[in-house]
Amino acid sequence: MKHKITFLPDNVTIDVEHGTSLFKATKAAGVYVLSSCGGKGNCGKCKVVVKSGAVEPGKSASYLTKEEAERGYALACHSHVESDLVVEIPPESRMQAKHKIATGANTDALIKLMREAGGCLDSRMMRVYMELKAPTLDDNISDFERIRRALDDRGFDADHMHMNHVILKKLAHVLREANWKITLSLFSTGDVTEVLDIYGGDTTKKRFGAAVDIGTTTIVVYLVDMKNGQIVGTASSYNAQVKCGDDVITRIVYATEKNGLQELQDLAVGNITAMLTELANKNAISPTMIDYIVVAGNTTMNHLFYGINPQFIREEPYIPTAAFLPLIRGKNVGLGIDPQAVVYAMPNVASYVGGDITAGVLVSQMHKQDQVSLFIDVGTNGEMVLGNREWLVTAACSAGPAFEGSGIKFGMRAMEGAIEEVEINPRTFEVNYRVIGDTKPIGICGSGMIDALAEMYLTGVIDQKGKIREEIKSKRIRRGESGLEYVLAWRVESSINKEIVLTEVDLDNLIRAKAAIYAGFATLLGHMGMGFGDVDKIFIAGGFGRYIDVERAVTIGMLPDLPVEKFQFLGNTSIMGAYYALLCDRLRHEAEDIARKMTYVELSVSRNFMDEYMSALFLPHTNLDAFPTVKKEMTRAKTWYPHEE
Amino acid sequence: MKHKITFLPDNVTIDVEHGTSLFKATKAAGVYVLSSCGGKGNCGKCKVVVKSGAVEPGKSASYLTKEEAERGYALACHSHVESDLVVEIPPESRMQAKHKIATGANTDALIKLMREAGGCLDSRMMRVYMELKAPTLDDNISDFERIRRALDDRGFDADHMHMNHVILKKLAHVLREANWKITLSLFSTGDVTEVLDIYGGDTTKKRFGAAVDIGTTTIVVYLVDMKNGQIVGTASSYNAQVKCGDDVITRIVYATEKNGLQELQDLAVGNITAMLTELANKNAISPTMIDYIVVAGNTTMNHLFYGINPQFIREEPYIPTAAFLPLIRGKNVGLGIDPQAVVYAMPNVASYVGGDITAGVLVSQMHKQDQVSLFIDVGTNGEMVLGNREWLVTAACSAGPAFEGSGIKFGMRAMEGAIEEVEINPRTFEVNYRVIGDTKPIGICGSGMIDALAEMYLTGVIDQKGKIREEIKSKRIRRGESGLEYVLAWRVESSINKEIVLTEVDLDNLIRAKAAIYAGFATLLGHMGMGFGDVDKIFIAGGFGRYIDVERAVTIGMLPDLPVEKFQFLGNTSIMGAYYALLCDRLRHEAEDIARKMTYVELSVSRNFMDEYMSALFLPHTNLDAFPTVKKEMTRAKTWYPHEE
Repeated sequence: MKHKITFLPDNVTIDVEHGTSLFKATKAAGVYVLSSCGGKGNCGKCKVVVKSGAVEPGKSASYLTKEEAERGYALACHSHVESDLVVEIPPESRMQAKHKIATGANTDALIKLMREAGGCLDSRMMRVYMELKAPTLDDNISDFERIRRALDDRGFDADHMHMNHVILKKLAHVLREANWKITLSLFSTGDVTEVLDIYGGDTTKKRFGAAVDIGTTTIVVYLVDMKNGQIVGTASSYNAQVKCGDDVITRIVYATEKNGLQELQDLAVGNITAMLTELANKNAISPTMIDYIVVAGNTTMNHLFYGINPQFIREEPYIPTAAFLPLIRGKNVGLGIDPQAVVYAMPNVASYVGGDITAGVLVSQMHKQDQVSLFIDVGTNGEMVLGNREWLVTAACSAGPAFEGSGIKFGMRAMEGAIEEVEINPRTFEVNYRVIGDTKPIGICGSGMIDALAEMYLTGVIDQKGKIREEIKSKRIRRGESGLEYVLAWRVESSINKEIVLTEVDLDNLIRAKAAIYAGFATLLGHMGMGFGDVDKIFIAGGFGRYIDVERAVTIGMLPDLPVEKFQFLGNTSIMGAYYALLCDRLRHEAEDIARKMTYVELSVSRNFMDEYMSALFLPHTNLDAFPTVKKEMTRAKTWYPHEE
Repeated sequence: MKHKITFLPDNVTIDVEHGTSLFKATKAAGVYVLSSCGGKGNCGKCKVVVKSGAVEPGKSASYLTKEEAERGYALACHSHVESDLVVEIPPESRMQAKHKIATGANTDALIKLMREAGGCLDSRMMRVYMELKAPTLDDNISDFERIRRALDDRGFDADHMHMNHVILKKLAHVLREANWKITLSLFSTGDVTEVLDIYGGDTTKKRFGAAVDIGTTTIVVYLVDMKNGQIVGTASSYNAQVKCGDDVITRIVYATEKNGLQELQDLAVGNITAMLTELANKNAISPTMIDYIVVAGNTTMNHLFYGINPQFIREEPYIPTAAFLPLIRGKNVGLGIDPQAVVYAMPNVASYVGGDITAGVLVSQMHKQDQVSLFIDVGTNGEMVLGNREWLVTAACSAGPAFEGSGIKFGMRAMEGAIEEVEINPRTFEVNYRVIGDTKPIGICGSGMIDALAEMYLTGVIDQKGKIREEIKSKRIRRGESGLEYVLAWRVESSINKEIVLTEVDLDNLIRAKAAIYAGFATLLGHMGMGFGDVDKIFIAGGFGRYIDVERAVTIGMLPDLPVEKFQFLGNTSIMGAYYALLCDRLRHEAEDIARKMTYVELSVSRNFMDEYMSALFLPHTNLDAFPTVKKEMTRAKTWYPHEE
């Protein structure tokens, strides 16, 4: 028996079998619903509102507030279709389309940075315009040879020129229709010069490329005018793979056990195509003018992007198929740009240190410095690199996506509606906060969480273990459905008609995340026989927010207690590095050297790491002496509750 | 309204619309019917027998004998379906499936010849078996890097090793399922070493390649065991493109004007796949074990094989898309072998001198000799090469496919049932003939035609212009439906229940063909300021028959009047050259050097060629002094009719 389901607000209707999971139905309908666990039934995020009709709600109730249950809420993954339905995806379960992540990119600043890194506008993708002599009976070499001869005349190494059969198929007609005035799109692989495409007339001025950061949670694209490096547009969206799972592990399981490899590839490629198409349209160009694209992502993301099953990345001894992925064509992955476009993936180092980190090191330029730097990219995972011009070691700690909003009841990415700054009055426990976009809040992003955790700790709202002190007299501290919680924003203040809170579970997740990061630093340094004192500079990349309050991050013990001037926040180094490599072949080579140079340290089996992690599960740390500044601040802080000594 | 048509003897039934052309219906049904004009309605070859039902016969009658008309014959191209039908394709209109062209290849002899040409078993396709160390936490490089390291250990240039995403997609699973014991299929392009495929276990002993001669009329394949060069099977079939036209010009028109490019490609590729599959099955191997294939064909044939429109080959100034076609994969053209198989096309020289001729020169080894040789390949076209180790010039004359059977009423390829030798009694005008396969004759092949023409001339049955002398009293000389004709075989002798004749139209076509060939020789020599006396050796390749009677070919003036020992019949040099290049990369390089070295002379616009051609439209030639041997023979010949002086 079939039932009709209409999803609101998209107003998409599909037919499904009786008993179909509502989660599966959203996917079949192409309707986005938030999910951290990929439909396994344990994250409680895929809330929907059944407006009419009946579902078998399964264990939905255990994830819903009483009020939600009364208002017809259900969890999509637990619910099964029993009749025709009208189902609304409420605002807190959508987000993708409505809220754009701020990704503005300043071309001049980026080109300046690239120049400082030794880069220049010298891509290995080029366009050459030529006016050929038409053939005659006396000059009757083949069309291909005519082009080769012309390139040879211009000093190209025409002996190692290659043109594939796809281009050969159209060559004769393009040449004659364009009256022998043509533009070649050439790409140097190092071994050969490949003719990627041929155009009638002069198209040297219409060359576009794209830099792409494929994050586990968010995808960011830059559309770049290749003739001058200008970023003509930027866009970002949630990685639609999110609906198959929040983190790389869940995605790998989905690809492997649920036969979802093709689906995952299509989702990310679909996101990228959609954004590039939109940007191209906005700039009145055709997406087929995009013929070079550099992607940076973690190892799992770029394996999925290539359609390579990442199964063994997850299984000990954690082996990717390839660190250096080959050049492929746009059509090979299904990108809706020039089918002949070259796709280059920033090289990976190991299963849990990917091209995004290679890109990050390239941007930081730590690999050219005499003194030792530490680089960290806090995204859905936390990857770090330690080293200088002579050596580089790297590790990844599964910090989890807490700082990106996942596993946190009201957690969200740094986008409009996110609380990004928090201040708590130590006497009244009242809250001041700032929201991205200056709107009513929807949730809280990474930088807001760091602030909140630090402020709650300094004001004594929580103890060293992150437990809320119930004895404090404040209406903001209360017992909610999942235990004690602290109210950041009252229902009337929020745009989702709910109180925005941090629960003890949230706090615990955040402490685990920050502990993993700190333990990673400490283990990596220990691995090299060093301490924090040996580190000259700490580069921070990632998507906590538009910026990170370093002092607050030190307060919670996520970052080591070093002078503020040693820290440098670089933002999204993944997209920046991809942009560098797109424009400058010298820097792309440099990225490959970086990837080859990095030694990977496997933390998941490290005894030291476990010890460091256990010690870091306190605020700021078991060993308070390692955080002298925090110790001093705590003494200074006038709090209601005396801190433990 | 739809009608059902059953084609016999294949017993294939299809539904077609009322009024559909019967010729189109045969194509839709995949049933082979002979046709020289590609269904244009003017060759009269696509005869079928309507066993039941009605057709609108159009102008069929004008191509049929009275008896044929009475027996229900019709021309498929002129007939349109009017009811349900049972249609038989009579023996004279099929041939493809029933009669196999002799293509037996002697491996030992071929390898010996290859060795004499400086070749050895050293293909650029190789297989390497490796037992890799399984990864551990301490040795956790990527799967790809593990392979690269192992190749490096074995002395390969692993820096220029390339593996595409198709192989990468399966790499992880193949490695683990095979417990790290794998075989790589490697291919050196000169610039990089490409990993074409990966197999579990040791498959170094199961390597197969194929050499293919794509003739305009016939396709020949060799299935080759690459580990020892052994030819494990040979096969040949008509090129199914024949139904779209007899010669390259008709095919080009079909590709261009009838949008038939894809169809033509599919037809030839289908032939090759079918033959290779059959040969593989016979040898109990999978066609997917074939991973290297070398094709030789004329420029139009290999353009069509690649799916490249050959349109401008036909239009002055006659330009192909490429002389050197790039390496492609089996899947790129749709071959049903290993999809990753490398396809290499022997290089072309110009629009009318293709890879088959490059292959031919390679086999002749004329390019290494001090003295001047002349090479000629008489196929559907006549291509010739003149030169020595220092220079090579080449030309093509549109001799037409007469010697391959086309344009000749009972003409056919050299296969079972073909009259291959003819002797005419100068007194009785009775005929002795030999038939390939020692069966009853179906028709006459090239060598038989040369014999017949020579014998008819020497016995006085025809005059110097090829006109039959009606005054001769012989029941074999008679006026048939298309003018005077000579009966080679009586109805009772033939296997087609018809008299096999040569008509004056046939004779005229043969004389035009031989004139074009001779004129080509003469013009090419003239171009170099030389005469036949300067030629040390004449190599003859092509498909006249199993051999060619040089003296008879001289008698008709097709070949110059030189001592018999100067002539060498090489057979099908196209397939032999492809076989050399498949097995020996040194000889493949040599073929490329040959192609680069050859200078093309365009005869179609040559005044000299036209003059030579006009002079050669006599038997043996206007200038009988150029044929002293023939002159002598004619004096000796005791004929009924005194020859002209």
